[in-house]
Amino acid sequence: MTKIDDVARLAGVSTATVSRALRGLPTVSAATRRRVLAAAEQLDYEVSPSASRLAGGRTGTVAVVVPRITRWFFSTVVEAVEEFLHESGYDLLLYNLGGREQVRQRVLRTANLHKRVDAIMLVATPLRPADLTALAALDLPGVTISSGTRVANWPCVRIDDVAAARTATRHLLDLGHRRIAHISGDPDDELAFTTHLDRRRGYQEELRAAGMRPDPSLDVESTFTIDGGNRAAAELLSRGEPPTAILAACDEMAMGAMTALRDAGLRVPQDVSVIGIDDHDLAGVLGLSTIAQPAAEQGRLAARMLLDPLGARNLGPIVGQRTPGCDTPVILPTRLVVRESTAPPRAH
Amino acid sequence: MTKIDDVARLAGVSTATVSRALRGLPTVSAATRRRVLAAAEQLDYEVSPSASRLAGGRTGTVAVVVPRITRWFFSTVVEAVEEFLHESGYDLLLYNLGGREQVRQRVLRTANLHKRVDAIMLVATPLRPADLTALAALDLPGVTISSGTRVANWPCVRIDDVAAARTATRHLLDLGHRRIAHISGDPDDELAFTTHLDRRRGYQEELRAAGMRPDPSLDVESTFTIDGGNRAAAELLSRGEPPTAILAACDEMAMGAMTALRDAGLRVPQDVSVIGIDDHDLAGVLGLSTIAQPAAEQGRLAARMLLDPLGARNLGPIVGQRTPGCDTPVILPTRLVVRESTAPPRAH
Repeated sequence: MTKIDDVARLAGVSTATVSRALRGLPTVSAATRRRVLAAAEQLDYEVSPSASRLAGGRTGTVAVVVPRITRWFFSTVVEAVEEFLHESGYDLLLYNLGGREQVRQRVLRTANLHKRVDAIMLVATPLRPADLTALAALDLPGVTISSGTRVANWPCVRIDDVAAARTATRHLLDLGHRRIAHISGDPDDELAFTTHLDRRRGYQEELRAAGMRPDPSLDVESTFTIDGGNRAAAELLSRGEPPTAILAACDEMAMGAMTALRDAGLRVPQDVSVIGIDDHDLAGVLGLSTIAQPAAEQGRLAARMLLDPLGARNLGPIVGQRTPGCDTPVILPTRLVVRESTAPPRAH
Repeated sequence: MTKIDDVARLAGVSTATVSRALRGLPTVSAATRRRVLAAAEQLDYEVSPSASRLAGGRTGTVAVVVPRITRWFFSTVVEAVEEFLHESGYDLLLYNLGGREQVRQRVLRTANLHKRVDAIMLVATPLRPADLTALAALDLPGVTISSGTRVANWPCVRIDDVAAARTATRHLLDLGHRRIAHISGDPDDELAFTTHLDRRRGYQEELRAAGMRPDPSLDVESTFTIDGGNRAAAELLSRGEPPTAILAACDEMAMGAMTALRDAGLRVPQDVSVIGIDDHDLAGVLGLSTIAQPAAEQGRLAARMLLDPLGARNLGPIVGQRTPGCDTPVILPTRLVVRESTAPPRAH
């Protein structure tokens, strides 16, 4: 069996550097990392379960930072991560930002984390320059989930948010809709991340590809919650002629929009079609059409990349589109799920 | 300002014993704890923010054990607990049992916890005699949420599950229903706790109080999930004449039942009324009548009792029914929320 020494010899570095490179530590240069990965691949080096554990491993704990554990996507990710960490002998320290900017700063900018955990996973956590400096100083392995959260030399797992919104918009266009509204995230949200910007971009790109011009009066910003979707749809309806279809930036917003429509005496999908992005546990119960994203898979894969960076590179079928580099995002596929909430417009 | 020494002098114990008594440690006898609490009250002793922190405080971390973070009740409790712990300078180590008996044993029965945390919160975690022995040996302060999880000398926060189910059943009886089915928890579930038994008891007690005899053919056991409710309702329908109303033991089961009824061509509430227990975030969207329980309040209160046992005794309005003893459950109130899913039976 190939040993770490063989990899070190072939790559011309120390075994410590091999270990650091395979763990994605920022203190290893990109060139060295590439050389180590190439050597490991060439020798078919299998990271053993014990060796794959984070060196140091002083705490046996991984920090997982999420914006809001009560939202479907985050609780699903956390459950999957916890399961994977547990199997690897790690505990999960949960930081729920809960919309509190000072919590974000405390978690990311104090030396606290360094004493408490061996590694960090950031899920849809917005990062300011000072955060990136603080994270680099921690010198801990890390991984991120979502396009808005990128740290140099950390692996990143995400979906293609632009493509997801394009597919949803295409579905509505194919049904014959032309007055398609969009409910997007709120850029003034203290913890706003960029997911909603990518999703809006996809909505606008697909409209333009169909020769249409996005109508600002059909684009409403709100929070990523049921209540946010409810308020946004009510705002849309107050602006005059209702849209014939709504693309909400997440399923919880779509569910809120369905309630607002119902409260206004409009039927879904007869009067207004609604589609979301997620495939929330309750999307089926509500008959909500959506773009399904693999939340648990993103969590599992991110945990795997954190604990076993080399092993994670041979994942096979669950990975959609990826390249071998440690800091090139791994992009998992999404798919259209058509249920009862979308149909052709009445006049069509 | 009264000092801990004054309380110790009046109670005739050491300051260490005062601290331990106020933290609810099992090594203090019930008689001593009562004496300390009486002295503290008499002197109007205010636990200072720093003094209220758990003595020892080696780790700055509290373990929170939940069955499934993806269920509404548990993610809501965890978010509230995390917020309270954060304000008190504590981190939250999350143990998600996820239906895995071996995880439960590892978490509760190894000495691991003792090294990692200063205190433990168990939410709806089933406890076997060996677990209780292991927890006593840990000698850490603890608190539990839910009636099925009791540890001697630990405070407990919960709702009255029997009363909640009685209120739901009474609502259906008042509407004129007589064929009232119940979807309950699965006793063969590896991680079954007793909540579902209390809720079934409430259902049966209320029927009997109305002079009716519970009909076993209208009582189906399943898991506490959307899918569990779906399967249970399908099973009920397969047994012949459908009930005119269903009380599901939680909202997620009720939502699954609504889907099964819709799939069978039955309308809610015209053909079958459905009521749950919880007041899930999406109950409003689905028009689900339910018995609302204060999930976040249970989390906040339990966290407060853990970090500041004396302060928690002066909580005021959020506490429904309680007695001063450290191990007498604090029972928070529930209330009936009537939405569109319940109505009089057709023949009525």
